[in-house]
Amino acid sequence: MSNRIVIALGGNALGSNLPEQMKAVKVTAKAIVDLIEDGHEVVICHGNGPQVGMIQNAMTELVRSDPDRYIPCPLSVCVAMSQGYIGYDLQNALREEMLDRGIDKGAATVLTQVEVDPADPAFQHPTKPIGAFMTEAEACRLEKERDYHVVEDAGRGWRRVVASPEPVGIVEIDTIRSLVNTDHVVVACGGGGIPVFKTEGNHLKGAAAVIDKDFAAAVLARQLDADFLIILTAVEKVSIRFGKPDQQDLDRLTPETARKYIADGEFAPGSMLPKVEAALSFATSAPGRKALITLLEKARDGIRGRTGTMVCG
Amino acid sequence: MSNRIVIALGGNALGSNLPEQMKAVKVTAKAIVDLIEDGHEVVICHGNGPQVGMIQNAMTELVRSDPDRYIPCPLSVCVAMSQGYIGYDLQNALREEMLDRGIDKGAATVLTQVEVDPADPAFQHPTKPIGAFMTEAEACRLEKERDYHVVEDAGRGWRRVVASPEPVGIVEIDTIRSLVNTDHVVVACGGGGIPVFKTEGNHLKGAAAVIDKDFAAAVLARQLDADFLIILTAVEKVSIRFGKPDQQDLDRLTPETARKYIADGEFAPGSMLPKVEAALSFATSAPGRKALITLLEKARDGIRGRTGTMVCG
Repeated sequence: MSNRIVIALGGNALGSNLPEQMKAVKVTAKAIVDLIEDGHEVVICHGNGPQVGMIQNAMTELVRSDPDRYIPCPLSVCVAMSQGYIGYDLQNALREEMLDRGIDKGAATVLTQVEVDPADPAFQHPTKPIGAFMTEAEACRLEKERDYHVVEDAGRGWRRVVASPEPVGIVEIDTIRSLVNTDHVVVACGGGGIPVFKTEGNHLKGAAAVIDKDFAAAVLARQLDADFLIILTAVEKVSIRFGKPDQQDLDRLTPETARKYIADGEFAPGSMLPKVEAALSFATSAPGRKALITLLEKARDGIRGRTGTMVCG
Repeated sequence: MSNRIVIALGGNALGSNLPEQMKAVKVTAKAIVDLIEDGHEVVICHGNGPQVGMIQNAMTELVRSDPDRYIPCPLSVCVAMSQGYIGYDLQNALREEMLDRGIDKGAATVLTQVEVDPADPAFQHPTKPIGAFMTEAEACRLEKERDYHVVEDAGRGWRRVVASPEPVGIVEIDTIRSLVNTDHVVVACGGGGIPVFKTEGNHLKGAAAVIDKDFAAAVLARQLDADFLIILTAVEKVSIRFGKPDQQDLDRLTPETARKYIADGEFAPGSMLPKVEAALSFATSAPGRKALITLLEKARDGIRGRTGTMVCG
């Protein structure tokens, strides 16, 4: 049975530096091509935390080395660069793994912008640390000159913080759809997408923000009318009373139980909570849609109903 | 009359830093959308000299700032990042200009790898300077540790040089074709493409090289079975006896006259010569194919036969 599947890759699927990424994408590609071999259409969304951090740090060092010549690089541009960097390795690993198995499909990366709402309350409370540590003087200067939000980070120095608003829609959705419909495995919405908001006329302006990749994947899955959203993470199943002696792993979550557990504080913010929320938002967006949360190497078994936590609408 | 056109954008179409690029792409988008408005299908290839230079410099500064944590970034990865950086601005400017004129087409950037031949003689004589100036000690260390080719550059310091091999084929050609066929204006082969060569099995390995974007555009135009290749540059027409009192601007170049002028040394290497060679290679690749060399703002007039230099097969 063939399904349209959007996969949100967890951080371990890519590693955190150049040599790690080269190795990690091979393992990741095998798990994804398992699904393609089973006949599914696959679209892949991935995070970019360590990668965009590296690029931000590099651009910061460049400005430090020659402040008369260079200006700080907007976060949106750094995200665009990270999509190029990660997409290159990931589409290559997918291409090679498919060819090795005799599968004749294209592998493509779509540079993707994701619209956010300038009125999103997240912009009032930026919380996501980004880029290199700075001295207090440097932080104050950027706060004044470039309107950055900065915070002192537990005695380790100053850092910039940005908002993490909700994704509203995928700008390049028609491009992604065209490629899925012409037999491509597509890498899209890398790093949650380049965050943009609509301004006057038809202009899109880069936002100083990062979008959670699980939420971006949920919107992507909705807009592509996917059957499944698979959120890959570091555990095989979602649990309640996580890490306690009476931890209970869950095979299934209905919207009602998911909402109850969320209200009870069963899922850690910034960790399992956004994954369950993203899964729930997709699974309840139309009849028949399902979301699976599991390990990368269990994705194939999970889709076959053998493991993982399935969130059904 | 509707034609399929591949455009190779010259350096001035993008500017040489972040704020320049933001402005330049607006002007560039207007000239390109003029062609789209006339009913043509357009695929865009662009250079990346200043942009990949900036990224290389940033990655070098990052390693200098923390040599224990970071390793030098392969040139192929820097090209991938530059495709993300430039494609983001360019596809956005195209999208906005089309929407402003009521044109309902997608604008997409395809992360593109271009195959080169490891036996290309260019690899024996790397000549293209890349990235930041270094001290002699730094240059010698990289030569030893990372097998870089380095040269002393006219008293200004040491630089890495890489090969500029000929493009053999576009790895993502089916992706580009799918998008052209589903009504997209496509940005592809940015910076001449991420240079790769085939190794054992189905693996593609990044090459320490840069591909001339005019040659990449000619291969792209051939593989897409385009009608026109337009090479945009800093002059309205190709000239012989360029800059001399008896300079003669050319409206038309046949393969015979083009070859004669090339043999006579009429065109400057690294400047007009590769453009005429790329134009000639496309125009002679199949009957009916034509190449136009002109200014960005004359592209529309040139296609209508009113200006520029047309190279006919």
